[in-house]
Amino acid sequence: MKAEKISELTTNRLSVYLRCLDELSTAGEKTVSSGGLAKRFHLNSAQIRKDLANFGEFGVRGVGYDIDRLREHLIRILGLNKKHRVGILGAGRLGTALADYYRLNQTNFEIAGLFDADPELIGKKLGSIPIFDIKDFPSAVKRDNIKVAVIAVPARSAQDLLDLAAEAGIRAVMSFAPIPLRSADHIKLKTVDLTTCLDSLAYHLAGYENPDGQEVKPSPKKRRK
Amino acid sequence: MKAEKISELTTNRLSVYLRCLDELSTAGEKTVSSGGLAKRFHLNSAQIRKDLANFGEFGVRGVGYDIDRLREHLIRILGLNKKHRVGILGAGRLGTALADYYRLNQTNFEIAGLFDADPELIGKKLGSIPIFDIKDFPSAVKRDNIKVAVIAVPARSAQDLLDLAAEAGIRAVMSFAPIPLRSADHIKLKTVDLTTCLDSLAYHLAGYENPDGQEVKPSPKKRRK
Repeated sequence: MKAEKISELTTNRLSVYLRCLDELSTAGEKTVSSGGLAKRFHLNSAQIRKDLANFGEFGVRGVGYDIDRLREHLIRILGLNKKHRVGILGAGRLGTALADYYRLNQTNFEIAGLFDADPELIGKKLGSIPIFDIKDFPSAVKRDNIKVAVIAVPARSAQDLLDLAAEAGIRAVMSFAPIPLRSADHIKLKTVDLTTCLDSLAYHLAGYENPDGQEVKPSPKKRRK
Repeated sequence: MKAEKISELTTNRLSVYLRCLDELSTAGEKTVSSGGLAKRFHLNSAQIRKDLANFGEFGVRGVGYDIDRLREHLIRILGLNKKHRVGILGAGRLGTALADYYRLNQTNFEIAGLFDADPELIGKKLGSIPIFDIKDFPSAVKRDNIKVAVIAVPARSAQDLLDLAAEAGIRAVMSFAPIPLRSADHIKLKTVDLTTCLDSLAYHLAGYENPDGQEVKPSPKKRRK
């Protein structure tokens, strides 16, 4: 693992382990075994041992992992030991909700500003967060050292804003737009699609009717296992 | 495809096609070819034809798809032709932001109520949405015909609320809790992890340093292709 970038699936799991350890630490616990962590949070203990073994020896046989020490390591591995400044593109309902969510939850992401094209919004503030003209995003990126762009605008404007962010030198983007976006290879684009997510629940609820209205046998989930 | 449940990957793609067609319809367009749809929204045209062919013949050679007719079909296939009532568990920042987002965006999901344990919040309203005592969720499920639960509480309470929802007869759950939850097979659980998503961007930004602080060769993304 020394000279290899770890996969996104692995970093996602490490991120989950970190949240779980945060919970245990808050509850005042000091050590946890891979089995204990797996049982408590419905994880796979062999997978935990494998993932963590990539980064050296954290566990002590019969005692388990030192929670705080392991947390520090994971924070460092995941690059969470430094603050990243975030610009939210779109100061509508979703943008302001996200700004509130990330502002008030303890994370190492700091909202530098909201950006919008609406003259009614530009110049106002959401709590302590200023709302800037979207046109000024490239200069704000330089001035405020913004590293992450969050796209929280309707589908039709999303690609333009992704392109704007890319031109401004942004390399990490989180998009809430419910359509696919195209980005250059060096840009990390994460998509959170709140609409597709609910659609998929609707399909589940639709009771497996096919488009001709004929009932299809239920619980195919079990058969797929 | 007659007697088979279509896979989640397929329904996710159909949901994306529907959003794209919504965009085109709003722009006043009447027909689109699979190639045009693919080009405009950075999709795969062969995949589009394959996905849609499962449900009968929508396209006319040389003309393309009739946008409104295809939209109606997709809406029906995805079970979006009926309203689903949603209960949001947790009336904190995230819960209220989601309520606002889903209330004000046109979807076929209707927020029946927010549910919380905080006596300060119970009995209040968010716009027209009442905040109920979380203890009353099971009775509200029956009374208001709630079909979807959205879990918007801190990690430590999430599993309890998922269990509560399952006991109340809920079969479709969307969780924003940043830890894994365990659910019965007949429950469809979708997880949206806003924390892990940002963590993954932080890792990208960390510049591929390994835990020993040694630089690792950049742009492994290209190599992985």
